[in-house]
Amino acid sequence: MSASDSTEKGEKSSNQQWGGRFSEGVDAFVARFTASIDFDRRLYLHDIQGSVAHAQMLHQAGILSEDELNAIISGLEGILEDIEQGRIDWSIELEDIHMNIEARLTDRIGAAGKKLHTGRSRNDQVATDIRLWLRDEIDAISEELKRLQEGLLDVAERESDTIMPGFTHLQTAQPVTFGHHLMAWYEMLVRDYERLQDCRKRVNISPLGAAALAGTTYPIDREFTASALGFERPSRNSLDSVSDRDFAIEFCAAGALIMTHLSRMSEELVLWTSAQFNFIDLPDRFCTGSSIMPQKKNPDVPELVRGKTGRVNGHLVSLLTLMKSQPMAYNKDNQEDKEPLFDTVDTLKDCLRAFADMVPHVQARKENMLEAARRGFSTATDLADYLVRQGMPFRNAHEVVGKAVAFGIQEGRDLSEMTLVELQVFSDTIKQDVFDVLTLEGSVSARNHLGGTAPEQVRQAVLNARNTL
Amino acid sequence: MSASDSTEKGEKSSNQQWGGRFSEGVDAFVARFTASIDFDRRLYLHDIQGSVAHAQMLHQAGILSEDELNAIISGLEGILEDIEQGRIDWSIELEDIHMNIEARLTDRIGAAGKKLHTGRSRNDQVATDIRLWLRDEIDAISEELKRLQEGLLDVAERESDTIMPGFTHLQTAQPVTFGHHLMAWYEMLVRDYERLQDCRKRVNISPLGAAALAGTTYPIDREFTASALGFERPSRNSLDSVSDRDFAIEFCAAGALIMTHLSRMSEELVLWTSAQFNFIDLPDRFCTGSSIMPQKKNPDVPELVRGKTGRVNGHLVSLLTLMKSQPMAYNKDNQEDKEPLFDTVDTLKDCLRAFADMVPHVQARKENMLEAARRGFSTATDLADYLVRQGMPFRNAHEVVGKAVAFGIQEGRDLSEMTLVELQVFSDTIKQDVFDVLTLEGSVSARNHLGGTAPEQVRQAVLNARNTL
Amino acid sequence: MSASDSTEKGEKSSNQQWGGRFSEGVDAFVARFTASIDFDRRLYLHDIQGSVAHAQMLHQAGILSEDELNAIISGLEGILEDIEQGRIDWSIELEDIHMNIEARLTDRIGAAGKKLHTGRSRNDQVATDIRLWLRDEIDAISEELKRLQEGLLDVAERESDTIMPGFTHLQTAQPVTFGHHLMAWYEMLVRDYERLQDCRKRVNISPLGAAALAGTTYPIDREFTASALGFERPSRNSLDSVSDRDFAIEFCAAGALIMTHLSRMSEELVLWTSAQFNFIDLPDRFCTGSSIMPQKKNPDVPELVRGKTGRVNGHLVSLLTLMKSQPMAYNKDNQEDKEPLFDTVDTLKDCLRAFADMVPHVQARKENMLEAARRGFSTATDLADYLVRQGMPFRNAHEVVGKAVAFGIQEGRDLSEMTLVELQVFSDTIKQDVFDVLTLEGSVSARNHLGGTAPEQVRQAVLNARNTL
Amino acid sequence: MSASDSTEKGEKSSNQQWGGRFSEGVDAFVARFTASIDFDRRLYLHDIQGSVAHAQMLHQAGILSEDELNAIISGLEGILEDIEQGRIDWSIELEDIHMNIEARLTDRIGAAGKKLHTGRSRNDQVATDIRLWLRDEIDAISEELKRLQEGLLDVAERESDTIMPGFTHLQTAQPVTFGHHLMAWYEMLVRDYERLQDCRKRVNISPLGAAALAGTTYPIDREFTASALGFERPSRNSLDSVSDRDFAIEFCAAGALIMTHLSRMSEELVLWTSAQFNFIDLPDRFCTGSSIMPQKKNPDVPELVRGKTGRVNGHLVSLLTLMKSQPMAYNKDNQEDKEPLFDTVDTLKDCLRAFADMVPHVQARKENMLEAARRGFSTATDLADYLVRQGMPFRNAHEVVGKAVAFGIQEGRDLSEMTLVELQVFSDTIKQDVFDVLTLEGSVSARNHLGGTAPEQVRQAVLNARNTL
Repeated sequence: MSASDSTEKGEKSSNQQWGGRFSEGVDAFVARFTASIDFDRRLYLHDIQGSVAHAQMLHQAGILSEDELNAIISGLEGILEDIEQGRIDWSIELEDIHMNIEARLTDRIGAAGKKLHTGRSRNDQVATDIRLWLRDEIDAISEELKRLQEGLLDVAERESDTIMPGFTHLQTAQPVTFGHHLMAWYEMLVRDYERLQDCRKRVNISPLGAAALAGTTYPIDREFTASALGFERPSRNSLDSVSDRDFAIEFCAAGALIMTHLSRMSEELVLWTSAQFNFIDLPDRFCTGSSIMPQKKNPDVPELVRGKTGRVNGHLVSLLTLMKSQPMAYNKDNQEDKEPLFDTVDTLKDCLRAFADMVPHVQARKENMLEAARRGFSTATDLADYLVRQGMPFRNAHEVVGKAVAFGIQEGRDLSEMTLVELQVFSDTIKQDVFDVLTLEGSVSARNHLGGTAPEQVRQAVLNARNTL
Repeated sequence: MSASDSTEKGEKSSNQQWGGRFSEGVDAFVARFTASIDFDRRLYLHDIQGSVAHAQMLHQAGILSEDELNAIISGLEGILEDIEQGRIDWSIELEDIHMNIEARLTDRIGAAGKKLHTGRSRNDQVATDIRLWLRDEIDAISEELKRLQEGLLDVAERESDTIMPGFTHLQTAQPVTFGHHLMAWYEMLVRDYERLQDCRKRVNISPLGAAALAGTTYPIDREFTASALGFERPSRNSLDSVSDRDFAIEFCAAGALIMTHLSRMSEELVLWTSAQFNFIDLPDRFCTGSSIMPQKKNPDVPELVRGKTGRVNGHLVSLLTLMKSQPMAYNKDNQEDKEPLFDTVDTLKDCLRAFADMVPHVQARKENMLEAARRGFSTATDLADYLVRQGMPFRNAHEVVGKAVAFGIQEGRDLSEMTLVELQVFSDTIKQDVFDVLTLEGSVSARNHLGGTAPEQVRQAVLNARNTL
Repeated sequence: MSASDSTEKGEKSSNQQWGGRFSEGVDAFVARFTASIDFDRRLYLHDIQGSVAHAQMLHQAGILSEDELNAIISGLEGILEDIEQGRIDWSIELEDIHMNIEARLTDRIGAAGKKLHTGRSRNDQVATDIRLWLRDEIDAISEELKRLQEGLLDVAERESDTIMPGFTHLQTAQPVTFGHHLMAWYEMLVRDYERLQDCRKRVNISPLGAAALAGTTYPIDREFTASALGFERPSRNSLDSVSDRDFAIEFCAAGALIMTHLSRMSEELVLWTSAQFNFIDLPDRFCTGSSIMPQKKNPDVPELVRGKTGRVNGHLVSLLTLMKSQPMAYNKDNQEDKEPLFDTVDTLKDCLRAFADMVPHVQARKENMLEAARRGFSTATDLADYLVRQGMPFRNAHEVVGKAVAFGIQEGRDLSEMTLVELQVFSDTIKQDVFDVLTLEGSVSARNHLGGTAPEQVRQAVLNARNTL
Repeated sequence: MSASDSTEKGEKSSNQQWGGRFSEGVDAFVARFTASIDFDRRLYLHDIQGSVAHAQMLHQAGILSEDELNAIISGLEGILEDIEQGRIDWSIELEDIHMNIEARLTDRIGAAGKKLHTGRSRNDQVATDIRLWLRDEIDAISEELKRLQEGLLDVAERESDTIMPGFTHLQTAQPVTFGHHLMAWYEMLVRDYERLQDCRKRVNISPLGAAALAGTTYPIDREFTASALGFERPSRNSLDSVSDRDFAIEFCAAGALIMTHLSRMSEELVLWTSAQFNFIDLPDRFCTGSSIMPQKKNPDVPELVRGKTGRVNGHLVSLLTLMKSQPMAYNKDNQEDKEPLFDTVDTLKDCLRAFADMVPHVQARKENMLEAARRGFSTATDLADYLVRQGMPFRNAHEVVGKAVAFGIQEGRDLSEMTLVELQVFSDTIKQDVFDVLTLEGSVSARNHLGGTAPEQVRQAVLNARNTL
């Protein structure tokens, strides 16, 4: 029995010294201050799963009899049902989820319950629970992420021909297709998905058997429990197993990148729904209106998601600060690892769900996008490219285009709205086929290579993405 | 009536599209996702205080009749009592604390309740509430901080003569007094207190009257409400008033420094309770033992406080990220300002309370401290200073001390344990009075200037501190 | 002589073990790795100032003769001139700026140079230098900040009548004046200025005399040096004096808020220069064009400033992480305090200068601003307020306005473009005077209270600001 | 030619307006403020590599003649030599490394130089350069990391039998082997190595061909350049390619974890070299001594490494802040991505080198470690485990051990120092074989399962690690 860290709290009598100022005595305050049951109870399911596997291993190792094993398993099943039915009063005196469950188990089945903790400690138990829990949450987050990706593919396909201005520095640069823009969002999420899976590999390692810090003297079978719990393998060093919180930090870093991406999409959605851009319509249910200003439709959901980026960045910093300079092995500081991790998971699930629900219903205002692209000589680059292809030296081509644009500004007309004769004033190498490149359609179609903005490429990208998703 | 931001949500019928996968329909999910009542309800008291002041002003401005004012005030008092008695069911449909209270008010008193919102908006209302709330919390935190300071003064006075090794690089450097060390902690807190007060000046400004963003067309009296609520003055620009979150960031930055200081104290407490240092005893109730290792007494409270530093650093980053690049005036992102702020307040109050409770009961193991100071030639600097005072050039003094220490290492004796004759082998300028500086007591007493480690200085510092606290 | 921390490095012979892989031997690598001269040399002026004051005090205390003092002062003056003329080769072997200067001084003036370090240590010396330096930089930053504020007042006054849409959620909310918007920026900077001054109080404390950690046995006069260097007072605890880095963290936190504000202004400048908003013109020299897209004028300066926000947030986190859990007193970790601080200062000075240069030259495109405000029924709130003032119950007023807006959307006309007869269809309480509030001018003028957007209030705010600046 | 972003700066005449206050005119200031050549010049090699591959592709696509290609390649080779010989004066007017090199190329080879930029833009060029550079740096960092791992394996093997106290809460918990402790460090680095490799996959993607943002109209072959530069594949979306900075953030997150691990090792090294622990000796060249306190040997290198953790955490925050809410595609903000990345790389390489140099020379003070483990009843758990194995119920075993320890404390003797008769007073189930588990050697040997602290397991772990490294 390596339960080296289970606690024996002293008397809990209310300390009177500060009684006049506080609603709780010193000891009660310390008990609450150091307890984690208020937040770690969400690990109940995985704590029970871990205990069942551990009990089975103890049985196989001859430490628990068949009867004891059966009593433990049915006892834990009963507790699970109680929890899910809301029939449990969590006790701060029992500090955490592990002690709360163990105490209930002993209440239910007597002595056998006390044997469950043989060959393990709360240190490896909590490390096991949190990894089991996070593995499930990574899978749930990955599902939502995929659902958002599927939604993006649908809209990208639908809008593969839709032309909008491409921006750099928030200035019109060159025309792009809206589908192409959405596929850029899609690609961000591809990397996010990969990062989650890479992180999952490092989460999915079993610390069970590390005991308090040094392993145990019982003849445990760490391969058995690792396998029973679906872990890839047991961890390789007991000290490291109880002190490692890398997986939580790596997960939050991956989460911070997901939120960064959602913040960028949000920023664009907010811009696009402004009266000044007016590029898209968001479904009403993702917005709020105003009781008095009927023109208002506030893009609440993207704004809130954008705001939540700070939350996850903050949690990442919190965990990095937590682990900085900690000597081995387990220190009480590490109790602080859970809340940032829990809230990161909740935030990611909610924000991805909100986006996955919303994105398929984004409506492009195609006319406005097209008109914005038309303004601003966005095909100037295409004219220069055209001239260079005719053999004109680079500098000369620039000069020609510069003059043509100056004329256009003066006349209030885009390059594509000039006549051939007008264009030939600037260079007689310009022929009728110039209009194939000067139109917005010509411009986007000409960028017809892997990764380019041409509608054909967008459709191919959607197809490829569907095949690998 | 400038309630430009109150919302009219569309139908809340459960969306069936994702029904198979979710336990709540899309609209219900969005309602929950965007609601803040789960956390902003803690502002209830200050929301009501703000409303009372606003109603009084409206009455004075002739907008509310005396009857209407009385109805509003008694209605709000009733609601306050309901809340404090736990008789309120908060509604997610009503989104936030402001709408929950307003709806209840109208239920209670009818039409007059609807007039309360005249000349204000939720934007200035929430800004007012949060400032009122934070002002109170700063005062509560300042009180705890002072209580910790008082505890430090008591222990510092008690231990003004207690000698311990002073460390640089965690290597014994020169002897110091334990009281002096604790007064260094005290000084950190002096700055923390000042920063809280400086921050409070900028919190204590009234945004009420900024309305949605531009002010209001009603003949409001912003001086009246500012004064009624104890604010120093009304804010000077309506756009800034509804978008400014500086005060929250500044507060969290001050909080991060407090936690940094507590983390440094915690680190030392943890070191000092280790078997290797064994400098102090912590009261049992701030520690946990182990059910199996009777020798263990884990310094849980300082460890946990040290861990909580990450939390507040994280919240600071969260708020800075939140505000980065936000255009004016109010954006929904700002709903995310509350939870980091709330948790920072809770963390500070708990950690300061834990320290204020614990510090007066820290017991110095004086013999161990003294013995540690005695080992390691901590008075070598004093010998060199002695020789320089006799007129010996600096380099020569160094050489003499170096040789004396080498001899001491070889013989296993400290400088103060050598005889005068032995010391004179290294320099005949050494006289009997050298022992005044070579003893630990002599060494600390000689640093008898403002800020020095001499017991006399420590007692004076305690005295001065008591006078200004 | 308390130079407890001056170093005696071992032999510097190149270690051959890794010779094949490295361009420098192990010892040379360690020397470079641990040296700070590459960055701390920027403290040279303040190091010399501190040394002069210390020498004067030593003279007054009878430790230095008049000749020694004069030799030291003229020696330091010579070194200062050498540095400013670029005639110094900094030595990594001498580790830092303090040892580089001291070694040169001894080269120049011989034995007296070695006496300069009497009664101090590098620990209090570096703490003194950095505080002296930062105090000057805070003053320089404050000057730039004020210059930006002055520029804002000029433009705000010029544009006190200019009408633009006020945004919440980046949706048109109510009309505001451009001057009012700029005064919101001004108010942010007022708080930033206050925070810098509050921080300066805590910077301007003299640690000189704390020596290595415990004070010194020499009869030093800490009030003398504090006063000579313009510090407000000597610090009160020697251990705290050499380990405190609060002032650097507090400064970076104030800097992070300044950058947050500049990022918000930048975001708006970038939005306003987009083709979609087209609200302002930035001077060419703060933008870049494109050699091929003549329409492009990229707002490089605001974009870059916005990007630099991350830099200062990062430095703040860096310093908080650095100090977390550090036991007292000085640890080598603290060498890492300088670069984040230096770069924060440089970033603030550059960004504020860029803004102070640029802001006075921002040109409003008034017609575009006005047109944007006109679109979107931004005076709907005013109509409702009008009706309520006529005695109409709130809910009815809402309904009336809602119908009028619906009619306006259908007809493509703003409320102010309807005839009185048309408006009276919705309510016969509407009279001719409604147009006083329905026009954009009427709307902004009506918000004529402290902090409101009325041109009169803006001009008054500018006047008040000029008086206090 | 898609050089949409090359700049045409206006006149650079010194602006006189602020001439009195500044050492440089407004335009010169803006030029310096926006230029990146001061830091991005370190990309020179990879910029040239990228240009060579691009030129070869242009030749193959028929855009460059063989002569032009040859001229470009030999021109770039000449420039490379000039740079490496220090014969280049970088120009701020030419803004960045790309324009500096291109301008020099045109000076050298004339018109052909101008053709090099055909079909690319600075946006994809800089994205290509930074990925090529970072790929090389990841490989260099991985090498240093492996070297540190090899050093750890050597020491772990050497110290596989060395017994030390295992700590939780910095309190003696159970005995462990020093080799086991070092293998925990090793395991941390295994994950760090994996993370670097996972990150490298996402770095090693070619953005070349994305041009300014939308692709290009030239018949480029993106597979060709990707392959020529050793990239795994071309990127899939041009907008994403020029705006993605995930790889830099992911790298810094991996770096922050490496530094976190080094900070934990540093903390332990600092503790272990303190007089109180005195567990190890660090080689002199990684420490500094003191000119006056010969007993001092400050562990400068681990302290400094611990301090540098903040630096990398800060850079991570800096980059996350930078990218938050950025709309696509390229914005000038992104120029700020380089310095944090560069400094993270430098910090990692230096810190890993310092550790890889130092760790093999750490000398264990075995007697001190053993003595520390002996104190504190570290085998109490083993006695309880022994009793449970004899069939004693768990609670009874606890009680027995508790009494035995109490007796030991009273007598000043460890459990292993009691006689069998003395132990049997507490329980007669105790037999002679109890001493097999009560000795420190017995205790560690008994934890003989995968990941346990037994010497045999440590040696096996070293063997396995050597096989996979």
